[in-house]
Amino acid sequence: MVTRRRVTIADVARHAQVSTTAVSKVLRNAYGASPAMRDRVRAAIDELGYRPHAAARAMRGRTFTIGVLLPHIRNPFFADILDGLSAQVAETDYQVIIVAGGAGLKEEVRAIEALVDRQVDGILMIAPLTSRADLDKVAETMPAVVLGRHEKSTAYDAVDDDDEYGASLVVEHLIGLGHRRIGHISQKDASRGRRAALPYSIREETYTRVMREHGLGDEIAVATTSWTEEGGYIGTRELLARSPRLTAIFAGADQAAFGALAAVHEAGLSVPGDISVAGYDNTRMAALDHIALTSVDQDGVVMGRTAGRLLLERVEGRTASVRFSVTPTLVPRRSTAAPPG
Amino acid sequence: MVTRRRVTIADVARHAQVSTTAVSKVLRNAYGASPAMRDRVRAAIDELGYRPHAAARAMRGRTFTIGVLLPHIRNPFFADILDGLSAQVAETDYQVIIVAGGAGLKEEVRAIEALVDRQVDGILMIAPLTSRADLDKVAETMPAVVLGRHEKSTAYDAVDDDDEYGASLVVEHLIGLGHRRIGHISQKDASRGRRAALPYSIREETYTRVMREHGLGDEIAVATTSWTEEGGYIGTRELLARSPRLTAIFAGADQAAFGALAAVHEAGLSVPGDISVAGYDNTRMAALDHIALTSVDQDGVVMGRTAGRLLLERVEGRTASVRFSVTPTLVPRRSTAAPPG
Repeated sequence: MVTRRRVTIADVARHAQVSTTAVSKVLRNAYGASPAMRDRVRAAIDELGYRPHAAARAMRGRTFTIGVLLPHIRNPFFADILDGLSAQVAETDYQVIIVAGGAGLKEEVRAIEALVDRQVDGILMIAPLTSRADLDKVAETMPAVVLGRHEKSTAYDAVDDDDEYGASLVVEHLIGLGHRRIGHISQKDASRGRRAALPYSIREETYTRVMREHGLGDEIAVATTSWTEEGGYIGTRELLARSPRLTAIFAGADQAAFGALAAVHEAGLSVPGDISVAGYDNTRMAALDHIALTSVDQDGVVMGRTAGRLLLERVEGRTASVRFSVTPTLVPRRSTAAPPG
Repeated sequence: MVTRRRVTIADVARHAQVSTTAVSKVLRNAYGASPAMRDRVRAAIDELGYRPHAAARAMRGRTFTIGVLLPHIRNPFFADILDGLSAQVAETDYQVIIVAGGAGLKEEVRAIEALVDRQVDGILMIAPLTSRADLDKVAETMPAVVLGRHEKSTAYDAVDDDDEYGASLVVEHLIGLGHRRIGHISQKDASRGRRAALPYSIREETYTRVMREHGLGDEIAVATTSWTEEGGYIGTRELLARSPRLTAIFAGADQAAFGALAAVHEAGLSVPGDISVAGYDNTRMAALDHIALTSVDQDGVVMGRTAGRLLLERVEGRTASVRFSVTPTLVPRRSTAAPPG
């Protein structure tokens, strides 16, 4: 499987009786390579066991690598994004490599630098903490797509979810069921980005705005923790301590909603009999029958696939920035119902 | 953040007034660099904004990169392993990059090749599908640790869980509670590895052996699907169709157990009133109060940390192979209880 002596692109060209430029075109999946040419080159590649040598290519300007920065790998929504990206690049010779950021700004910056240092051809950044200026700097050195931030940039492409619309769907759903005392679990702000540009702030502000629009300004209750199981659990305990007790919780992410369900059950309360719980992301777990969590679907697979397409377009020369925004949908399940009595 | 003009190792040495060898020692976190030397070099690195240039270093023989092959990023147990590995290398200049394998053998082999091509200094492989011979070939070209396979090798280090012991804990626990009709959810064999070397086959064989030892050979019922939520769901529906109905299910992994819980609830049955359910991996989700899944803890963080330590030792020159095995523990929770009636 691992060849010791390296077959070169020249070997492939000779074997296929085509030019090295033609081989290169086929490798990049670029326009201008006929299907017949493609088949011939592919056959030669398979017969010789040719594998482009990443480091040597880096010296010549292309590594056929897409770098992905994820904050961590615990959020199943990131797995959806990665599935979409992988499907998009599967037909090309690009390989996706992932670096996980970590808990703080320092770790996130280090992770971005690690990808830049490895001379990836393009970079997809889910980078909630990094400053906008630093994202722009990265994008000036290589094709870049930023996912999940709402700033405008002329340096990179942006893929996001319409968080304002998604959050309003949840709050309107709960109010429509008859809830008035609705709490929200938000995420602590550790970012150098503009707060208004990040999903957690947009979801929280939308919650606040919709509550006010319905005359429920006095009922606003936000627990600011983190979007993890632990964060949802702690935030819910905080919200449940209020009197009179609230009847619904909108957790800004499914992971936090799972922690919320745990805290509600631990308090001897039932879902949705005593408390309705809704999340955001529509993870697979949310769909399981014993959880049946009402959530918002922002289609991570489509987001990842689009990010891949945009990156490949930039690698091929596009410089104008584009923005792609998913319009989310509400998926009501059994975790939300009318408030008690 | 991203420097355009590259500071070289020579610049750092000059600035710190030490040799380039000394700088290199500090970067590798190798023995023989005094704390004072370390501080001086670190200060120079910070002041000059030096960042080792991965591709150029690759040409000289070291990339300061640890490559990790994961089958996918959906299993939270992998996140535990990665946390341990990251903690272990955090104090060094090594960066962890991840490649996700995919559904089949072809994808897994391609992912391993991608890491080899990127000339990582060491590779951690969670590679259930690849043949033993191919793992050995990789290990002959670079320091390698294989996680979760039980073959012996002189080429790589192995980190695993004592799956036989872990599985016996679960089955003995269920039998001890009074269960006789205990089903098991196993995973389809798509591997080129020896079947007996893989966790799913060891757990299944242990289940079968312990059942027989207790005179329950006639009650053996195995559904072979996959260790995902979907796989657990499908496998449980298959097991629930048996008559007389079984009273307990041992799913080989927590992810599958979550699907099992869903299928049991969907069938209008209660856990543990009608059916006890146990998993394996002790994921965070298993510990949440509304799930409270009995599971086996194999301490992924320790496994990842150990894998990191073993890789760094190999990078520094160790060639003798070692094996590190975690002895798992049972974590009983509310999802298992005595059978009905």
